[in-house]
Amino acid sequence: MEEYKQVVIVRSDLRMSRGKLAVQVAHACVSCVLEIVEKGGVWREWLNEWVRSGQKKVVVKVDSEKELEERYKRALVLGIPASYIVDAGRTELEPGTPTCVGLGPAPSNIIDRVTGDLKLL
Amino acid sequence: MEEYKQVVIVRSDLRMSRGKLAVQVAHACVSCVLEIVEKGGVWREWLNEWVRSGQKKVVVKVDSEKELEERYKRALVLGIPASYIVDAGRTELEPGTPTCVGLGPAPSNIIDRVTGDLKLL
Repeated sequence: MEEYKQVVIVRSDLRMSRGKLAVQVAHACVSCVLEIVEKGGVWREWLNEWVRSGQKKVVVKVDSEKELEERYKRALVLGIPASYIVDAGRTELEPGTPTCVGLGPAPSNIIDRVTGDLKLL
Repeated sequence: MEEYKQVVIVRSDLRMSRGKLAVQVAHACVSCVLEIVEKGGVWREWLNEWVRSGQKKVVVKVDSEKELEERYKRALVLGIPASYIVDAGRTELEPGTPTCVGLGPAPSNIIDRVTGDLKLL
C-alpha cells in the first residue's frame, strides 16, 4: 500500500523558541491542506488517503534560506503541494523572514525526491 | 473588526523534543481545519475570515492530562471546533498519550473563555 506523508522543512539557522517553531510548522501544514481543498484533483485524493492512514508528519532541517528556497522550487517542479512560510515578524524574527516550507500530503516516494537526504530536526 | 485565532493547548508535563512538539501542534491545527471543511456552516465562515486575516495561531500550556481534558470539554460545550490529539506512540511517548488540544479557528473572544487564563508555551 502506498504511503503518504507531509514533510516540513525548517531552517535550523534561525533561533526560534519551541512555541514559535511549532506555530511555523502548523502554518505550513495548514496552508498546504487549504490549498489542496481549494484546488481538488489528485491532490485531494492524496489528502484523503493521508487522513485515512493517520496524517503522518515529519520535520526535517536545512541550514539556510537559499537551501529552503531550492527545495521549495524542486517540489513545485514535481507537482507536490507546497507552502512557503514567511514570518510576519511580530516576535523573535525580522519581518519577512522565510522560516519553513510545507510539502504534501503526497506519496512518500515523490516527497523523498525533495527531502530524502535531509536530517530530522 | 472581529479577530479570529486558533489556539493549541499543550501538556507541559510531557517531555517532547522540539520536532515532536511541532508535529503534535500541527496535527491539532490540521485536524480542526479538516473537521470544519467537512461540517461547513458557521465554522466555515470563521475559517475563511481567519485565513483572510493571516491564520493567527497561539500555543499555550497546561500541566496535566486532566486539565487538558477539562479544557477540551469546555470548548465542545461552547461550540468551538476542537481536536483532541493522542500520540500513536512510535517515538518518545507511550502509545495513547494525549498530547494537546487544538481549538478553532473561532472568534478570539469565544476561545478566550476556554484558554484566556493559560500561559504561552
